[in-house]
Amino acid sequence: MQWTEEQLKEFDRNGVLYVERLFNEMEIAVLNSELPNVLRREGPVNLKERKSDSIRSAIAPHNSSDLYRRLSKHPRIIEPAIQILGGPVYLHQFKVNTKNAHDGEIWHWHQDYRTWFEDDGMPKPNVINAALFLDEVTEFNGPIMFVVGSHKLGMIPSDKNFQRIPEYGRLAEDAIGSPYTNETIDRLINKHGLIAPKGPAGSVVFFHGCTLHGSVPNMSPWNRTVVFWSPNRTNNAITAPTRPEYLALQDFSAVEPLADDCLLD
Amino acid sequence: MQWTEEQLKEFDRNGVLYVERLFNEMEIAVLNSELPNVLRREGPVNLKERKSDSIRSAIAPHNSSDLYRRLSKHPRIIEPAIQILGGPVYLHQFKVNTKNAHDGEIWHWHQDYRTWFEDDGMPKPNVINAALFLDEVTEFNGPIMFVVGSHKLGMIPSDKNFQRIPEYGRLAEDAIGSPYTNETIDRLINKHGLIAPKGPAGSVVFFHGCTLHGSVPNMSPWNRTVVFWSPNRTNNAITAPTRPEYLALQDFSAVEPLADDCLLD
Repeated sequence: MQWTEEQLKEFDRNGVLYVERLFNEMEIAVLNSELPNVLRREGPVNLKERKSDSIRSAIAPHNSSDLYRRLSKHPRIIEPAIQILGGPVYLHQFKVNTKNAHDGEIWHWHQDYRTWFEDDGMPKPNVINAALFLDEVTEFNGPIMFVVGSHKLGMIPSDKNFQRIPEYGRLAEDAIGSPYTNETIDRLINKHGLIAPKGPAGSVVFFHGCTLHGSVPNMSPWNRTVVFWSPNRTNNAITAPTRPEYLALQDFSAVEPLADDCLLD
Repeated sequence: MQWTEEQLKEFDRNGVLYVERLFNEMEIAVLNSELPNVLRREGPVNLKERKSDSIRSAIAPHNSSDLYRRLSKHPRIIEPAIQILGGPVYLHQFKVNTKNAHDGEIWHWHQDYRTWFEDDGMPKPNVINAALFLDEVTEFNGPIMFVVGSHKLGMIPSDKNFQRIPEYGRLAEDAIGSPYTNETIDRLINKHGLIAPKGPAGSVVFFHGCTLHGSVPNMSPWNRTVVFWSPNRTNNAITAPTRPEYLALQDFSAVEPLADDCLLD
């Protein structure tokens, strides 16, 4: 599963690349049928929404589900990651963000890498994300909006008095808001523009660790469940973790991609 | 400005009709240039958002602005309203909902007529709305979502313990949520489907007083300012107002549409 020269150029230019139906219906059905086992885990690995008991983010499902362990090493994600980042990768994070019907709350404008630098000590922004839709994503259920090409700016430091609340049972950013002032967000979006990829379950959005993104609450009747991989170069491993291990993984050995049919074995 | 047979049929079928660029750029420029005078009014006629001092809804601007007084009688709105409702109309409400960039909060799923029946004593759902875009409406700035054909259900009574908070300086519904349970909303939307008209400034969405609708917060850098007329049949005037007059107008005399160029005189 190698990307074409054209795909690599588009990713480099935009910091975002959408691939429709990268996983097939059978694979998505299997992943969805295992999901309840992941979501019923007790404790802080399943972060809840601020205003309800809906799961917001199920962290490190590969530690408790063999199917999600196999998914975490899937060649359709890991091989392009190695290609884009130029060498072996390990996973800095692996998680499922559910954005449930009615209850899924806002994700303020943010770069993932800013947190990974400040909280985890990741040396360089040589890291990407892949986001697999387990549900159809439409204009109605809170698609992720990306600021096109914003990864070219590198890490954008917080420009307001933004302090993380070390409260991992509920997601802190949601309470605090964006690390950026409205003026910064306006300037970046008006300069670069927004896109919000939408499509059937099984589609994947790859995006750079510095691509600014966010999403509105989900007030529709339809869940918008997405699996996130964060492949990082093995030579870029974090040096100063301050968070629990499930939020900043510490197995820095190179992921060996499994076979293409690893989910249906 | 009479609607075609086809337009009337579409409105009757869907409870929603979108007309692109019903007002031209010059008219929109004039309305936008007068807007700051409307938004700087003091007191409860300008409702604020819950979490900021952004204006959420500027009520009854025709009482303080001659331009908006003329807009309230515009033939491109009033004549179709007379045609749809089958006779003379007066305005039950007239307002500007700004849904400001960054600050514009959610409007939960609701029917306008449920409030107008319960709070104002409007006898029948023989009433429509017209919503004029003063800004371009895109997928990013919180377009109104409508449940197609839901007006055919008539008034849908609240199905949870929903009590209005008589707090008109901040909008009460926002704090309370929808008058409907998630199960009711799911059932209606899954049966009828959603649409969210988007388009350039100057476009108008007409929708029935019983059409269920709502919109997500606006986290984009772009305002989404919309003027709302609520034309009601003169023989359907409210009988038991409980709210201030600016929220439930009490001039029940028939609106005489002005000339087509009334904004540019």
